[in-house]
Parts: sequence; C-alpha cells; structure tokens
Amino acid sequence: MGGDHGAEVVVPAARAFLAKVADIDLTLVGQREVIEALLSSDPQPEQDARLHIHHASQSVGMDELPSKALRGKKDSSMRVAIDLVKAGEADACVSAGNTGALMATARFVLKTLPNVDRPAIISAMPSVRGSTHMLDLGANVDCTAEHLFQFAVMGSELVKAVTGIEQPQVGLLNIGQEEIKGNDQVRRAHDLIAASSLNYAGYVEGDDIFMGEVDVVVADGFVGNVALKSSEGVAKLVGHMLRRHFRKSLWSRIAALVTLPTLKAFKEEADPRRYNGATLLGLRGIVVKSHGGADAKAFENAIHIAEHEINARVIARIEHEVAAHLTPAPVRASA
Amino acid sequence: MGGDHGAEVVVPAARAFLAKVADIDLTLVGQREVIEALLSSDPQPEQDARLHIHHASQSVGMDELPSKALRGKKDSSMRVAIDLVKAGEADACVSAGNTGALMATARFVLKTLPNVDRPAIISAMPSVRGSTHMLDLGANVDCTAEHLFQFAVMGSELVKAVTGIEQPQVGLLNIGQEEIKGNDQVRRAHDLIAASSLNYAGYVEGDDIFMGEVDVVVADGFVGNVALKSSEGVAKLVGHMLRRHFRKSLWSRIAALVTLPTLKAFKEEADPRRYNGATLLGLRGIVVKSHGGADAKAFENAIHIAEHEINARVIARIEHEVAAHLTPAPVRASA
Repeated sequence: MGGDHGAEVVVPAARAFLAKVADIDLTLVGQREVIEALLSSDPQPEQDARLHIHHASQSVGMDELPSKALRGKKDSSMRVAIDLVKAGEADACVSAGNTGALMATARFVLKTLPNVDRPAIISAMPSVRGSTHMLDLGANVDCTAEHLFQFAVMGSELVKAVTGIEQPQVGLLNIGQEEIKGNDQVRRAHDLIAASSLNYAGYVEGDDIFMGEVDVVVADGFVGNVALKSSEGVAKLVGHMLRRHFRKSLWSRIAALVTLPTLKAFKEEADPRRYNGATLLGLRGIVVKSHGGADAKAFENAIHIAEHEINARVIARIEHEVAAHLTPAPVRASA
Repeated sequence: MGGDHGAEVVVPAARAFLAKVADIDLTLVGQREVIEALLSSDPQPEQDARLHIHHASQSVGMDELPSKALRGKKDSSMRVAIDLVKAGEADACVSAGNTGALMATARFVLKTLPNVDRPAIISAMPSVRGSTHMLDLGANVDCTAEHLFQFAVMGSELVKAVTGIEQPQVGLLNIGQEEIKGNDQVRRAHDLIAASSLNYAGYVEGDDIFMGEVDVVVADGFVGNVALKSSEGVAKLVGHMLRRHFRKSLWSRIAALVTLPTLKAFKEEADPRRYNGATLLGLRGIVVKSHGGADAKAFENAIHIAEHEINARVIARIEHEVAAHLTPAPVRASA
C-alpha cells in the first residue's frame, strides 16, 4: 500500500514479475478489497495463480514518523509483510513505503545479524563500466569507523553474491585534499579496511562512483545520501536540457525524430528505473526498498533484486562473512 | 605556474580575457623566461600592453603538502601572487594550483575577515533555473553549526553582490528522513539560520542543488565536495553514454550529424568550463581557484569571476554583512 501510488503500481509490477519468473510466488500485503478490485478489473489467470493476498488493515503514510508507525500501526501492510519474513512465510519483503518506517520496523521485527551494529541501505548505481554499489544511502547519519568497516564487509559480500565478482574492489568515499583528507572516522575506517582481507582499493572521490573504478563505495549515510540525490539531480538537469534543446526549433524537432532510435537507446540505458531497489543490509531477512515514486516497471525491478538476493542466499553469506571479519579470534589455551 | 598545464593555459586565457575587458590589467606571476617564451612565440601587442610579468622562481606541485609549500616555498608563483594582493598591488589572485596549498597560503598571508572562523570554497553550479552557488566545496571537513551559519551569511552576500539577486534564498543541505534528519551540527545550524534575517528556505536535498530551488546551498566541506564530485561524475557518465550511442551504427552516426547543431548547443550549455572558478570566501582579499585541469577557456572564466568580484566589491560587502550578523549586539548603558 506504500509509495506514492500504492497497489496501483504494485499489482501490475507483481504480475509482470510473475510472467518472467516461474519458481517464485508473490503475496500482496494490504487491503484485500483494494487489491481484489485491481485484480478483477483485468483478470490474468496464469499469473494470478501464483499471486496471493494477505490482508492488512492499515498503511503507513509517506510522511509519518517512523517511531509512530512502529508503535501505532501493528497491522500496517509494511509491518505485516515484514512479520511474514520473520515467520518464514516469505523469503523477502519489497516495499515502496516510507524509508524510515520500513527501516525501523524491519530492524525491530527482524533484528540485525550478529556482530552488525547498524543496518545500511545499499543500491547499485550506473557507471561507465556497468554498475557500482554504494552504501550507506541514508540510514545512518553519524557513523563510527567500525560502522563503516561493517558496511564494507557487508557490501563486498552482497556484491560478490549477486554479481558473481569474486573479489569486489571496495573504495572508501573521501575528498581529495591531502592534508585534510577525510575526518577521523574515515581515516580510521581506512586503516580497518586496509588491515582486513577485503580487496580494498583505498579512497575514492565522488566522481569515481560513476567511473566504475571500484565495485563497492562505502560512505556514511549522510554523505551517501547526498551523493545519491545529487546524482539524481544532475541526471534530471541533463534530461531537462536535452529536451529543451531538441524542442527549440523546427529543425531541432526534425533532428530529434531522426535521432529517435539513438535517443531511445540512450534513455533506456540511463533509465533510473533499471536501478530502482535498495537493500536494507545487515538484517536477519531480505528487505528491499523501492523508490516511493516508482512506476510498475521500476517496482518490478525492485522485486527482481529481492529474487536475486533470495537465490544467492545473501543473508547466510553475509552472516558468515561478518562473523569471519568481526568475531574476535578465539583465545587459545596454551599447550 | 600551477595546475596541470601551467603557463601554457594561463597565458592564452589572460590574453583572451584582456581582449574582452578594457579596464583591468593582468600580472602573470611565475618564471619570467617561461612566460616570455610563450608570449614572444605569438606576439599580440594590443593585449600584451596590459599584461605584466612578476617573476617567481618556485612553483608548488599539485601533490605537495600544503604545510610544506607554505613553509618551504616563499617564492612560489602562488605565494608571490597572494603577496601582491596583500600588498594592494593586485585586486585579486587567480590560480589553478594545488587547492590545499592555495587555501593554506591565502589564509596565512591574507588572514580571515573579522568574525570569520574559517574560509570556505564556493562556486556556481548549473541548475534548471540558471545556477546555484554551493559552499563549502572542500576546505573544511568538520564544521560546527556556527561555521555553517557563517557560510550561509557569506554565501548569501556573495550571491547578492555578483548576481544582483536582492534576497538570495539559502538552503541547508540535508537528507530526507524525518526522524534522523541531519546530524547535530546541521540541526543547530538550521536554528541559527532560521533565527537570522537571511532569506532561509530550510533544508534542501542533493537533487535540489540542480533544480534551482534555492540560490545558495550550505554544507560542510566533506558533503559539499562529495556532491560536487558526484555531479561531475554523473555528467561525465552521461556524456560517455551519449557518445557511445551516437557512434553505435552508421544510422546513429548520420543522426548525430543531423543533430549536430542541437547537440552542440546542448554541449555548450552543459560545458563545465562555464562554471570553472571557485572563490575562497572569508579572506581579506579575492582568491579564485581554477580547476587544475582547466584549459584556456575554463581558466578565462575563472578570471572573469575575479573580475565580477572586484567590480562588486565583495570583500567590503562580506565584511560588513558578517559584522552585521555575527557581532554580538552592543550592551546599552542604562538610561
């Protein structure tokens, strides 16, 4: 029920997903009558055989305070969906709802993995070489060096699991000036990651995210969120400029027609919907957050991310990896 | 002598500037023989009549530690140029050199304005509505709320002086989640700016920089630098994608030819050289930093920024404005 469009986007996205993926069933959590009305307005029996409904009477508003949603809405679609993951009745939860409420609820219900202090938000971003994963995208505004190190371990393992890259290169986001390079936390995180067995490429700067120099970029949630949103802003600005120039004159409109296939291919590659879906990493269950304004195509992408993470068994892998990196070595009894 | 290309870029940029601006003379500071060789290889008597040379025997390397440059290179082109500003022999200094060294030297020689704790780096960035100024772009990694407030006051006054906007809208960069909105410093800076007479628009997010919602965006130097570099990265990525798509097939190459005037106009508008030149704000003198990799056109833009700031008398205006906002109210003697 969450996001700017609720079930109207989720229902067609779920059906499009089911048309492509044979071995997964989907459960739509929310107001039964709303969902049923949408389904019956355009019956698709083949997909709907694997589409289930789980009623939830409430929904969390996009501007609702996370703490209020957590305390006051025990029967929200968000809460019930996460409860299903906790109970083992679902392998993952995908939501376009309020990020803060989703994180607070997921953390409260599912709990973090052992040795993980804080969950982080991670997503793929487009780059010259394909894509780069970045975390944290906004869950944690103040991070210690230890938090950043945990993000590096989790991010590296997620990328390894879902992309097949054997030794993902990890970069730590910093700024370029030598003597004032980074703050204390970043410098200490640098030492922690460098001393670990991760494939650490050292410091990277904002532009490196999009140059594909590394596979994983680690930052605190404030900085990561600003990088993400700034990049969205520039992409919007470029789109705005291109459209304006192509509409300027009769000649440019004709040129736009001639260029249509190329512009379409470009637009498809640059389509932010292809990157929709951010994972709440570090929890004892898979939770994927879709952009609130996502349309059906974008939301479907978020479901595919959950699918890949289920198939790659990311939770078990991350739990194992975190334990390997973060458990203190056992003290040996002397011989 | 600084930047990736040194005098080879600065000399033609200076001449192009002088060809357009009648009432300003330029002094090239650096190795006389290098500059003279460049000038004599292609004499332009009209411009060169207002182009002076001031010899400096040393130059600061792009990777040199600022503290070392400051202590060890008293006759660097950077240091001598700033000394000329200090002595009143120049109205502004423009450099493509090492940012950290330039800031350290400028701060040491010129000193900060009264009531300014730390200088910040500010630059215009393109937006849907024209441009938005952002500061700090990397001079200060850890900022208190008071520093951010000073940035807001200085940034607002600079924009007022150089753009003519009477009440520039000021936004404070933050992330979107309600309950964890910002860290302590940002929240306290919010209160300080809101309580001032600045035209404060409240919190903005990364994408708002490029939507032109506000005229000035305030952030600490770590966050501001990441936003700047990320946006440069996305712009490079989009350019890369566009080029690749237009080169893909014979048809797309023909389309590119037909579209050439439109693509050229777009490229011109999006040209980062039009935004080259960041001001070191809060000093007792005008210092403009050009991108190290700037070509002559980009470097010329940085000189024009210095020109605008000289003509707008920004130093006196900012000193006055900072005093108005930051001096404690005088205690009145009781009647």
